[in-house]
Amino acid sequence: MGLKGGPTEDEVMAVSLAKLGIRPGDRVVDLGCGTGKVAVALSETAGRVYAIDRRPEAVAYARDAATRAGRGNIEFFEGDAVEILPGLGPLDAAFVGGSRRLPEVLALLADQVRGRIVVNAVMVGTLHEAIATMRRLGIFVEAIHLQVSRSADIAGGTMFKPINPVYIVVGGAGCS
Amino acid sequence: MGLKGGPTEDEVMAVSLAKLGIRPGDRVVDLGCGTGKVAVALSETAGRVYAIDRRPEAVAYARDAATRAGRGNIEFFEGDAVEILPGLGPLDAAFVGGSRRLPEVLALLADQVRGRIVVNAVMVGTLHEAIATMRRLGIFVEAIHLQVSRSADIAGGTMFKPINPVYIVVGGAGCS
Amino acid sequence: MGLKGGPTEDEVMAVSLAKLGIRPGDRVVDLGCGTGKVAVALSETAGRVYAIDRRPEAVAYARDAATRAGRGNIEFFEGDAVEILPGLGPLDAAFVGGSRRLPEVLALLADQVRGRIVVNAVMVGTLHEAIATMRRLGIFVEAIHLQVSRSADIAGGTMFKPINPVYIVVGGAGCS
Amino acid sequence: MGLKGGPTEDEVMAVSLAKLGIRPGDRVVDLGCGTGKVAVALSETAGRVYAIDRRPEAVAYARDAATRAGRGNIEFFEGDAVEILPGLGPLDAAFVGGSRRLPEVLALLADQVRGRIVVNAVMVGTLHEAIATMRRLGIFVEAIHLQVSRSADIAGGTMFKPINPVYIVVGGAGCS
Repeated sequence: MGLKGGPTEDEVMAVSLAKLGIRPGDRVVDLGCGTGKVAVALSETAGRVYAIDRRPEAVAYARDAATRAGRGNIEFFEGDAVEILPGLGPLDAAFVGGSRRLPEVLALLADQVRGRIVVNAVMVGTLHEAIATMRRLGIFVEAIHLQVSRSADIAGGTMFKPINPVYIVVGGAGCS
Repeated sequence: MGLKGGPTEDEVMAVSLAKLGIRPGDRVVDLGCGTGKVAVALSETAGRVYAIDRRPEAVAYARDAATRAGRGNIEFFEGDAVEILPGLGPLDAAFVGGSRRLPEVLALLADQVRGRIVVNAVMVGTLHEAIATMRRLGIFVEAIHLQVSRSADIAGGTMFKPINPVYIVVGGAGCS
Repeated sequence: MGLKGGPTEDEVMAVSLAKLGIRPGDRVVDLGCGTGKVAVALSETAGRVYAIDRRPEAVAYARDAATRAGRGNIEFFEGDAVEILPGLGPLDAAFVGGSRRLPEVLALLADQVRGRIVVNAVMVGTLHEAIATMRRLGIFVEAIHLQVSRSADIAGGTMFKPINPVYIVVGGAGCS
Repeated sequence: MGLKGGPTEDEVMAVSLAKLGIRPGDRVVDLGCGTGKVAVALSETAGRVYAIDRRPEAVAYARDAATRAGRGNIEFFEGDAVEILPGLGPLDAAFVGGSRRLPEVLALLADQVRGRIVVNAVMVGTLHEAIATMRRLGIFVEAIHLQVSRSADIAGGTMFKPINPVYIVVGGAGCS
């Protein structure tokens, strides 16, 4: 599929979900939901998932993915997170796969989210902005640099081929 | 605590569990259970977890961890996996955190496990033996090299400190 | 020795020197020379090395290292790079192992250095500032993330233990 | 160019050369010279470089590279290292970029090389064989896992893209 960035890689998603620590019944937001892969994974445990993307083609794609997975507890929003978030009320956790206006988004999430906020960043600027903003808001918990390589068969043997490294920035209210 | 190796790191456990793909009700074995951290995590979803370690102090420690977590669905065995495995009957998945006689263990698991077998290896010899044995048994799926670094505060800024890299070797019946 | 940060690791130094591409006769500056390890290595090929550190104990230590290595072509300066650099005249290359006021330092180096400028960064803020400043000055070439793990003997086998990852940021006049 | 494996990456070569520690006048062998990139780099400092590859197209390509670099101190051999090595007499260092019959080659080098032997390995089997053989020969010094990521421009920012990880296995007579 042609969505910029492609789906979150399995190993990155596994670590991100572990950091989020979703419990049954949780109300969770997925910002920049892209293909919907993370939203569907979140919806396995969460009570309700709010999936937001400003790209109509992403929302359409993710909605399809949710339907195929048979998940009725995902609600989709097309638009800007800064405008949509205030209408969602208190949340238990937030996954930020991608977002413009990250400082504003994090400021909103810091007030609205009771549990963990996890940002996936591949760009140095996003990493720096996520950490600096979380520190300023007093919610920075930790950042993880995840470098995954996967085996590949070559000449009758096994070598490793790396996927793009991802920074996983973790915040949480009252955790700094 | 003084168990050799220490507990599996959170990020390594998250990726290992994702590769195992445990479903509700599954019967799962944890070989070389050590502190019991992975056994407890497995028992959240699995129906029954069989945790094996040849060190009495590990089994005692892990049993305590299970009690503290309130998990009644973990059964502990002190002894050699090669002798204990045959008595457990068909299994859905296996996690191998550490084991002597790995080729024999994998040969048993290849027959006994319907789903995924995940081996965590830190030593080059174990990595090589796990892949070579799984290839010989026709059950090799993939191997992952996981390099995790975690943020640390230094001089008012953020740097990254790495934890020891781990190889996650994945096998499964009929998957080669 | 007790200098903050310790000496640049061998592998990081090897890659940094390769990126600098020093030629015989070059006039090179080492900013934040610390233990003097990089200055001594630079002085093998360079014609003259100017080693600067604002800490008297670093300059004393590095001067000793130069004497022990029998290098007479290293000149030491104790003080602030921003004040010392203008007096050094045209340079062929610059290694920045550590520096306060990095944007000012890079602005000076952009004018003064004919060849490559290499910054070693371990902090996210320094990485971000080095790239952003080099881009603004039109001299950014590339950045490298270097993750080195070294073998360690354990239980009769070989495992890998990682050293702290380092970012190597490379700039050069007219290279952007 | 179409040689299998392609040239050794700059950063991997920099670390490998640093581990070799070539001094002026040294007699050095390059086994599996491929594109000749490492042989040319070795010939900057070494007195004489013997470059061996069993593929005629590699020797032709590397010979061209040496000519273009104006290096007259590289001697090329087309054939099997095990047969060619004994005729080269005592050596100061050896770089093994690729080789079949690695255990036999290392046994020869252990007798013939006074200084360092450096093997670049991408396959798990080669890594394991290099370490195990060097340990058996009593010449194992260390192994390095090198993970390099390079900056890439994306959407007005900077991200990192990894190159394939390489194991650098270092041996040396009387160093175990």
